[in-house]
Amino acid sequence: MRVMGVDPGLTRCGIALIQSGTGRSVTALDVDVIRTPPDMALENRLLAIHTAAEHWLDTHRPDVVAIERVFAQHQVSTAMGTAQAGGVIALAAAQRGVPVRFHTPSEVKAAVTGSGRADKAQVTAMVTRILGMQQAPRPADAADALALAICHCWRGPIQERMEQAQAVALAQQKAYRDRVALAKKAAGR
Amino acid sequence: MRVMGVDPGLTRCGIALIQSGTGRSVTALDVDVIRTPPDMALENRLLAIHTAAEHWLDTHRPDVVAIERVFAQHQVSTAMGTAQAGGVIALAAAQRGVPVRFHTPSEVKAAVTGSGRADKAQVTAMVTRILGMQQAPRPADAADALALAICHCWRGPIQERMEQAQAVALAQQKAYRDRVALAKKAAGR
Repeated sequence: MRVMGVDPGLTRCGIALIQSGTGRSVTALDVDVIRTPPDMALENRLLAIHTAAEHWLDTHRPDVVAIERVFAQHQVSTAMGTAQAGGVIALAAAQRGVPVRFHTPSEVKAAVTGSGRADKAQVTAMVTRILGMQQAPRPADAADALALAICHCWRGPIQERMEQAQAVALAQQKAYRDRVALAKKAAGR
Repeated sequence: MRVMGVDPGLTRCGIALIQSGTGRSVTALDVDVIRTPPDMALENRLLAIHTAAEHWLDTHRPDVVAIERVFAQHQVSTAMGTAQAGGVIALAAAQRGVPVRFHTPSEVKAAVTGSGRADKAQVTAMVTRILGMQQAPRPADAADALALAICHCWRGPIQERMEQAQAVALAQQKAYRDRVALAKKAAGR
């Protein structure tokens, strides 16, 4: 499975491609940071990010795009731009029929370091070790994009199976409720 | 000037086209609401909104797209989706070289009702009156998109002139500072 990991952002947007093998083996195929200048008009920054994402998708043809889910606890103004950058990348994937999955920062940290509260340095150190890289990936956005793609390689398939199982359980519950309702109706209650 | 007004949103996205004439005369040419179901995957909702915006831009060829600026004081989770919906519409405009301008909700309310704190009913009533419509536009998202386009027709040109004047003033200030710095250097200080 080829996973394109995205750490969204307007000023710096980390983007990485990871190939998963058997078990937990993962290989980094490419990593980059898309940058747009803060004094550029918002619509042109989004255009630059969308164009770069299109180029990545057409070049690397990933099976899935994993994007960090954005929360706005702190720094609301930045969070909006971050959400929009992630949005245009999700759009580029949808335009090509490539599925998109979202992971929270704590899911990503837990997947690569074992702790959902790990700091940036721990994430970068673990990414470097997992991928057997000679140097730590820089800047932090590149390391985060790699971590996101690794997280999806490891957690994605389990998540999909759990979601499928949940959907089956919900359908069975509904069928049971429908049957009970029908039986009650037939009993004239 | 033809202005496409956008009240962004994932579930309901208001979109309107206004033609401005001499003075404050404005005419509504079209209005619609793009809807996407809440149970659809985010990337497909963004794709549906982007596709609808592309269709509008190619059909109506507006001179400018005016989008409501999103703040996240309340309802942070909704604000993210709203920002992303506005983002993919801004992207569609940028992909066609159509300029994008943002107006805050209070700017829009002040422009059409005279008060930045007007409620939804007042905005709808004034939009109906300004455009000489027989019926109030529904839903509220349609009225908001019309209000946004009207706001840009009335405030846009003044705003642009003020921004140009400010840019000239900044350039003059910089030229003056540079001249003073040069003079100081020449005087050996």
